Amino acid sequence: MIENKPLHLLGGNPHVAGDITPPSRVPTPLRGTPKSLRPYVYALMAFKHGRDFQAKQSIHRTRRLSQLAARDGPFAPALTTLYAGISAVFSDSHTAVVAVAVHDNTYLLDFSVKNVELNGGLEQGEDRIADYVVKELESYEHNNLAKFVGAGLPNELLARAPKLCSRLWLELDIVPIANLPELEEAEARRARAFWSAKCVDEQADSMARKCIMHFGPSLAPILQVGYRGVVQVDAGEQVHILSVEDFKTTCDAPTWDAMIHYVISLKKMGTKIAFFSSTPQGGGVALMRHALVRLANVLGVDLTWYVPKPKPGVFRITKTVHNILQGVAEPGVFITAEEKKTLTEWIEDNAKRYWLSPGGPLIPPEEGGADVIFIDDPQMPGLIPLIKKITPNRPVLYRSHIQIRSDLAMTPNSPQSDIWQFLWSNIQHADMFISHPIPSFVPANVPSAKVAYLPATTDWLDGLNKDMNEWDQGYYGHLYNEQCHAIRMTELRWPFKKYIVQVARFDPAKGIPTVIESYAEFRRQLAKHFPKIEPPQLVICGNGSVDDPDGTMIYDQTMSQIELRFPHLLSSISVMRLAPNDQLLNTLLSASHIVLQLSTREGFEVKVSEAIHKGKPVIATNCGGIPLQVQHRKNGYLVEPGDWKAVAKHLLDLWTDEKLYAEMSAFAAVSVSDEVGTVGNALSWFYLADKWANGKGIVPKGRWVNDLARNEAGFPYKEGEKQLPRDFCLGRVYD
Amino acid sequence: MIENKPLHLLGGNPHVAGDITPPSRVPTPLRGTPKSLRPYVYALMAFKHGRDFQAKQSIHRTRRLSQLAARDGPFAPALTTLYAGISAVFSDSHTAVVAVAVHDNTYLLDFSVKNVELNGGLEQGEDRIADYVVKELESYEHNNLAKFVGAGLPNELLARAPKLCSRLWLELDIVPIANLPELEEAEARRARAFWSAKCVDEQADSMARKCIMHFGPSLAPILQVGYRGVVQVDAGEQVHILSVEDFKTTCDAPTWDAMIHYVISLKKMGTKIAFFSSTPQGGGVALMRHALVRLANVLGVDLTWYVPKPKPGVFRITKTVHNILQGVAEPGVFITAEEKKTLTEWIEDNAKRYWLSPGGPLIPPEEGGADVIFIDDPQMPGLIPLIKKITPNRPVLYRSHIQIRSDLAMTPNSPQSDIWQFLWSNIQHADMFISHPIPSFVPANVPSAKVAYLPATTDWLDGLNKDMNEWDQGYYGHLYNEQCHAIRMTELRWPFKKYIVQVARFDPAKGIPTVIESYAEFRRQLAKHFPKIEPPQLVICGNGSVDDPDGTMIYDQTMSQIELRFPHLLSSISVMRLAPNDQLLNTLLSASHIVLQLSTREGFEVKVSEAIHKGKPVIATNCGGIPLQVQHRKNGYLVEPGDWKAVAKHLLDLWTDEKLYAEMSAFAAVSVSDEVGTVGNALSWFYLADKWANGKGIVPKGRWVNDLARNEAGFPYKEGEKQLPRDFCLGRVYD
Repeated sequence: MIENKPLHLLGGNPHVAGDITPPSRVPTPLRGTPKSLRPYVYALMAFKHGRDFQAKQSIHRTRRLSQLAARDGPFAPALTTLYAGISAVFSDSHTAVVAVAVHDNTYLLDFSVKNVELNGGLEQGEDRIADYVVKELESYEHNNLAKFVGAGLPNELLARAPKLCSRLWLELDIVPIANLPELEEAEARRARAFWSAKCVDEQADSMARKCIMHFGPSLAPILQVGYRGVVQVDAGEQVHILSVEDFKTTCDAPTWDAMIHYVISLKKMGTKIAFFSSTPQGGGVALMRHALVRLANVLGVDLTWYVPKPKPGVFRITKTVHNILQGVAEPGVFITAEEKKTLTEWIEDNAKRYWLSPGGPLIPPEEGGADVIFIDDPQMPGLIPLIKKITPNRPVLYRSHIQIRSDLAMTPNSPQSDIWQFLWSNIQHADMFISHPIPSFVPANVPSAKVAYLPATTDWLDGLNKDMNEWDQGYYGHLYNEQCHAIRMTELRWPFKKYIVQVARFDPAKGIPTVIESYAEFRRQLAKHFPKIEPPQLVICGNGSVDDPDGTMIYDQTMSQIELRFPHLLSSISVMRLAPNDQLLNTLLSASHIVLQLSTREGFEVKVSEAIHKGKPVIATNCGGIPLQVQHRKNGYLVEPGDWKAVAKHLLDLWTDEKLYAEMSAFAAVSVSDEVGTVGNALSWFYLADKWANGKGIVPKGRWVNDLARNEAGFPYKEGEKQLPRDFCLGRVYD
Repeated sequence: MIENKPLHLLGGNPHVAGDITPPSRVPTPLRGTPKSLRPYVYALMAFKHGRDFQAKQSIHRTRRLSQLAARDGPFAPALTTLYAGISAVFSDSHTAVVAVAVHDNTYLLDFSVKNVELNGGLEQGEDRIADYVVKELESYEHNNLAKFVGAGLPNELLARAPKLCSRLWLELDIVPIANLPELEEAEARRARAFWSAKCVDEQADSMARKCIMHFGPSLAPILQVGYRGVVQVDAGEQVHILSVEDFKTTCDAPTWDAMIHYVISLKKMGTKIAFFSSTPQGGGVALMRHALVRLANVLGVDLTWYVPKPKPGVFRITKTVHNILQGVAEPGVFITAEEKKTLTEWIEDNAKRYWLSPGGPLIPPEEGGADVIFIDDPQMPGLIPLIKKITPNRPVLYRSHIQIRSDLAMTPNSPQSDIWQFLWSNIQHADMFISHPIPSFVPANVPSAKVAYLPATTDWLDGLNKDMNEWDQGYYGHLYNEQCHAIRMTELRWPFKKYIVQVARFDPAKGIPTVIESYAEFRRQLAKHFPKIEPPQLVICGNGSVDDPDGTMIYDQTMSQIELRFPHLLSSISVMRLAPNDQLLNTLLSASHIVLQLSTREGFEVKVSEAIHKGKPVIATNCGGIPLQVQHRKNGYLVEPGDWKAVAKHLLDLWTDEKLYAEMSAFAAVSVSDEVGTVGNALSWFYLADKWANGKGIVPKGRWVNDLARNEAGFPYKEGEKQLPRDFCLGRVYD
């Protein structure tokens, strides 16, 4: 039987590539081979001896980049951005022929073909194809001073190499995109002929080209929003960055087990969950929902996330609503009746066009609509009365993401009161009011029985947080330096120069002036008390975002503050507004030495936990949700807003006392609670969905959703488990 | 009647944006308005007072970039890359409401809405919408230090603003992409409701997002190859960069009129023309075909261009075929029998899969196949016997693009003879053999009766050649400097430093060592004879392409030559392999002072004409088609290959004698023949197609296709018309 015959015994002439005999002519060594197997054998014969990558690297370029790296660190050299295509054909369970094609933005650059011995590796929990491809791509990167950002592979390969996608994402920071074979190829495959008979090199090339089509000018896969405003998380499940097993590594067993408890119930009951928020990207809500949908998808939970059609004309209005509620709008700014009407009609228009029409998520559950609905945004409450009108008994839960100045919201005739009353007229119809776990964010007229607490969360394996190797960090660090160079801003010379960082939008509440004052004072103290110790650099950076029109002003104020007051520090400080790029921010945080978060007002600000999780001591203000995350003098320091002297003192200690730094860093890395990760988040949402859709609902009375979910599932918190503090009290003095 | 009523009399409340009343509720001022018109009126009301762009530019960034520009020239500052979306709604023939949305790679940044008074402008040959949009986008670019690279607009707008697309492309270097409205919108529009009633801002935003989807990581629209390998030139006609009128401006009347003569016949007869070549992008053949298909499309000529599925395994083989025929392969390199078989089977496989199946171009004309077929590539002759087998009488014309060493091709047992015999066994079945107009490129066994001459051509309005304003040149010049900075290569400081340029691949035949020797000698002479005159820089650059594996070696040799022999010139010479970008090469050529083309072997090399057309004096070698294009001592100088002393002498004259330079430059700009432009090219192909498909064919006997075409159409060349020399004789001595 051919299945068990080693490939090299199948015959065929030795040559490099491309000799694929069409099915109409049977070469001698194949006579007698069952016809159905011939396509496989042809493909294998074509590259019997394999084919190595052949691209040669310029000696000149290699030398220049090596010199740069040696002088200025791994952020200095520019790696070439590449895309890969991967394909494999199988003759039997023993051997695969794996092709890897390498593309730049436009052209095929190189390819390799190799026989990979499988020998039942998959059954033994090994993935030999993944082993091979990861090694092949990594060595190509190093040999050619390049960085793969995406890889295309055929859907079929997912089952044959189940670890490949996760490993590409987690080990090499490559976005894996699974594709159907091309139309003609799919047709041909149905006739059991072409896709396999085609040379595997051609397949890999096709996969690379398909992969590039997903990447827009930003070098990240373009986000697609589908019909009815369904957010196509992970390109509609074509991108497979994380498996169930990967998620499981990100939390402790009680969190995972409790979540699975509700997953089982939701799947058994076929519960349909719908989230509604206003934007599919940009900002913390979107980040959390991408992670939640990704996890729900791999678990098989029916959870869909909807957004309205974007409308430029409402952007300014919703931003003003936000600013008023947070108390940061200009005094006397109100939302006019017409603006409220515009908001209402925008939501109603979307509901009617997309969500209330047959097949939409807002039609009654018995007709196929969602069983439980989460309104996840201050711009969407207008949906609540519409839903309750047609299905009064269907649960609708409201998630409040912003730090409402609840004091002002209850002050008659204030702009806050005005807009809060407008929102509350809709929100009051919801079954629950879920707030960040900061009691002062909940206006007094919300019935306390309906209030539940839930922190913001982050995802430990997404682009913002996953561990990246130094090669990949170098790529993103260079992207940072490149943007600096474009405006002749101070570049980073890590690791030759360490740096302190604050990652935050250029927003009046982010305390950027205090960051600069603190750094300047720290430099004075360092020069005075430790004149022989080299100072670190300071990095102030954040994404410039569409709903951030103040960013330009704050950026200019920041530069003026430095130029006028601390011109001698200009060459030590790097201030950048950045285009969105998760891995770039990840790199900046990962390579930093100390992280600041000196906001004067805050929501939950989960970025603080992200820094702590990376083992970075954090110096942060006692604002919003920050003191829930920082354990004073254990994984960082809490200070009062504006107290630059205290910040400088802590910076000095951390910079000059290596033992202190090492202890704090080590504690930080293991001090973060599961509650701020995706699994903890999913636990809470799945619990709520299950209790409301399949049970009798909940009367939370100001309790934490996480506690309720853990208790109900039979995994209550035990003494000593990591947990955000429940006894938190704002205004506590820390020193 | 509402049609004739000024818009501001239609009522509605004044507000900035977004107040769009849904059709179900009729506001007071609209009562009595015919129902069918209400959607238009709602849209207009929403932005009655318009809405200006609101983005504010960072003062700090503006200052930094302005300082950079003042110190280092327009190539120094980095402009922000942007995309635009444009839409308009119309109430009547008097007024349009035009919205412009501005996006970066990810987000909406800004938008404007304005009433534009039409007042019958279109009937008077004016396009008020185009006037407005071009002005709006240009001022946004200047106010925000930005550069639009693409703009999306709805298909409907093409007819209402017929000059918009051409003007975006030709005046602002913006790729215009016309889109169908989104699915739901299209559906709704059929119901005569939503698309118009939707706010125009939402439409513009949608168009910007659709536009971005066309742009890949390279900032150029991604080339798509469709079913059966049809090259989707201009994104399948969604990109509308040039109109018939635009093409008409690029040539003299006799060329245009002669071409139209054949267009009329081809359209009358419904002639189907098919071109086959091996790659849809990269290299001169692809550039010419994109331009030809674009022109055929706007003229309504049925011309389709097919390429095979790319196959990595054959790339190296076809490159070797090329190198052998040109005599630049390593001595003794042969194409093996298996490699020939691979080539043959690759072509046969494609023919069977895509072109010979029902509906394909190679089925008989009476069943819907092409009437005349052009085989446009040394890799495709394998098709010729296949076609002749099923349709012996269908004309198949072979276009030879490479400089065949015809002497060696006829030398028995040479590698050239071997591969030429292999190709000729297929080509001999073709009805014509069309060569560059260099007799030595035609092997002796080609029957002279079948030989016709046709030069390579270029397109005067595509990205490589169109005039660009200084703003746009600055954008691309910066992209060049950015790539230089990445490897710490010498950057350009134009116009403070002028420069001499050779644009060519890093290929052994391009004479790059001579370029460096010539520049070094010129610098010696300049220092000696004109010590007070500042020297120019030298730029050596070219695209690194997939079929160019030698490029790395030549690049390294070039750098070694400079570093070892002329280290003092390192800071004056910029040597770069570039990612493909037409406008970048255009900018480098446009801003250059003198152009070199010092090849030791050449094909036609139409880049020489491109430089001359820009008014650049060219110093070039007497190789291949170059002496057909350069008029010695009139628009440049011809030298023998390797004669760096002569080159240095001419450089010195041009650099030090302003009057000489000005005269040569002025003559150059008007000295280029229509034969090397797209219209001249189309004239020749249309003539051939018409004569072969609708006439009795041609026996060219070594004549120029252009002459035959002009004569036949009744527009023979007149004395004094610009024309490539017919009496050309290789080896002529010029000085």
